[in-house]
Amino acid sequence: MSVGVASARPRIGLDIGGTKLEAISLDPAGAVTGSLRLPTEPGEAAVLRSSELAVRTLAERAGVPLDGFASVGIGIPGRIDRRSGIVHDAVNLGVRSLALGPDLSARIGLPVTLDNDVTAAAVGAVSLLGLRGTAAYLNLGTGLAAGIVVDGVPWRGGTGIAGEIGHLPFDSAGLPCACGQRGCLETAASGSALKRTWPAGGEHPGRVLLAAIAAGDPDARHAFDRLVSGAAHCVQLLALSIDPSAIVIGGGLRLLGAPLLDGIRAELAARAATSPFLAGAALAERVRLLDGDSPAAAVGAALSADR
Amino acid sequence: MSVGVASARPRIGLDIGGTKLEAISLDPAGAVTGSLRLPTEPGEAAVLRSSELAVRTLAERAGVPLDGFASVGIGIPGRIDRRSGIVHDAVNLGVRSLALGPDLSARIGLPVTLDNDVTAAAVGAVSLLGLRGTAAYLNLGTGLAAGIVVDGVPWRGGTGIAGEIGHLPFDSAGLPCACGQRGCLETAASGSALKRTWPAGGEHPGRVLLAAIAAGDPDARHAFDRLVSGAAHCVQLLALSIDPSAIVIGGGLRLLGAPLLDGIRAELAARAATSPFLAGAALAERVRLLDGDSPAAAVGAALSADR
Repeated sequence: MSVGVASARPRIGLDIGGTKLEAISLDPAGAVTGSLRLPTEPGEAAVLRSSELAVRTLAERAGVPLDGFASVGIGIPGRIDRRSGIVHDAVNLGVRSLALGPDLSARIGLPVTLDNDVTAAAVGAVSLLGLRGTAAYLNLGTGLAAGIVVDGVPWRGGTGIAGEIGHLPFDSAGLPCACGQRGCLETAASGSALKRTWPAGGEHPGRVLLAAIAAGDPDARHAFDRLVSGAAHCVQLLALSIDPSAIVIGGGLRLLGAPLLDGIRAELAARAATSPFLAGAALAERVRLLDGDSPAAAVGAALSADR
Repeated sequence: MSVGVASARPRIGLDIGGTKLEAISLDPAGAVTGSLRLPTEPGEAAVLRSSELAVRTLAERAGVPLDGFASVGIGIPGRIDRRSGIVHDAVNLGVRSLALGPDLSARIGLPVTLDNDVTAAAVGAVSLLGLRGTAAYLNLGTGLAAGIVVDGVPWRGGTGIAGEIGHLPFDSAGLPCACGQRGCLETAASGSALKRTWPAGGEHPGRVLLAAIAAGDPDARHAFDRLVSGAAHCVQLLALSIDPSAIVIGGGLRLLGAPLLDGIRAELAARAATSPFLAGAALAERVRLLDGDSPAAAVGAALSADR
């Protein structure tokens, strides 16, 4: 695999999520030169409109005409057909089917590529952290998925399911998963799992979890331990399958910060304490945490335009 | 990654196991042109002696002088240092440390490369089956491990643990594993697991398991079901992490043949019946079985000399 030759013009990257759209411009060397956030509204028309507005506003602020940019890359949840530029079933965005690539391209006159949001975040995280070789990215978001990046290029797999480790069962007596199986890793290590195992945490349990644990809430503690244990299992799984030199924790739950990272490392260390083999694999040392305000998916989307 | 330019001279591949050494010669197009088997005896000196004898005998039978061959590739269990050509801790061969690469090279005057036996078998299986793109190989041997092959080249990972999925726990209440953890996949889907869960099967339970099941032995049935369930879990794990187009079942237990393949496919189909997501991933269709008499590891070792 080889990385495409970077354009000499700056690129734009968009990360479209359920509540906000994050946009960045990237200079040819890969440095972020501008950024903005817009709230998003549900529906095909609104997503297209916000995307156009974000691109035009970024260009205006930079004082660069639209054709001064090389490309726009978009990271978006849902099923992505990269070839046609169509996104299907982006449920959180209220999008059933949208030809976002061609439709936005027609409005702004630039090539537009789409990528899965987790894949884009993986590429962006690896670039922002300056990682080389093989790295993995573990997205603890509403759902759970991983991205694999080899020499800066996302590992796309043969059929579009690479990195979907959230739907591997790890607890046969576990909770039913939205995918139809039981006890999937996603039922332990994700935002949706947290809401379910700790309903007292409300709509955004990740924001209040640590305070509740500090206040002695045993249910909050249980939900956190389950999250940590599932995430550690994912780290071990990624290490023992593709053997990446680094595994970066990202997604919305990265806002749990140091307690999350320390918890995962402690769980890996406990596993290694029973097993010389695992100890030799040095799993805890491979884990990194993506900064809370890092625009990884937008950066990765901009970079993915030529990968 | 790119495949090295194949030499115009034939190559030799050796697969050194606990009871036999299999040797093949491969023409420049990758076809097997000669093969032989020798019994092996334990110990460093015996392994080196058998290797030299195999190479000389193959060359003699082909009527080609030793320097008419390009290289010798060796697949061998244990910890391999490819750079130095040293193998450590090949327990089943009674080898603690042997500089097999340089020592054999000095005796025969050809470059000699070593590779892990599972990696070699993965490369060979993919070549023999004519698979392209990304493929995985699941070795159900005494232990359990996988090999990943991308465009014919083995995925070696960053630190030598790529494919070691046998040491991922999948049953926290499970049996202790030789690695120190509990309930590892290897405690379900391997020859050592079979011996342990069905001691009545004796030293080589795989050879008598199907007959015992046919005769109505419930313990044999249980051991088989556990093997199939663990192997199916491995297939799902490989599919949801690296998304290979094919997953080839190999290793000694492939001698269980169609019942093994059918059992794994049935287990995957049962899982898919509960999950539209899994059904869409078409796991059962990706599984293949390596032929019982296929010299995959010897072929892969010969090919790996330039990969």
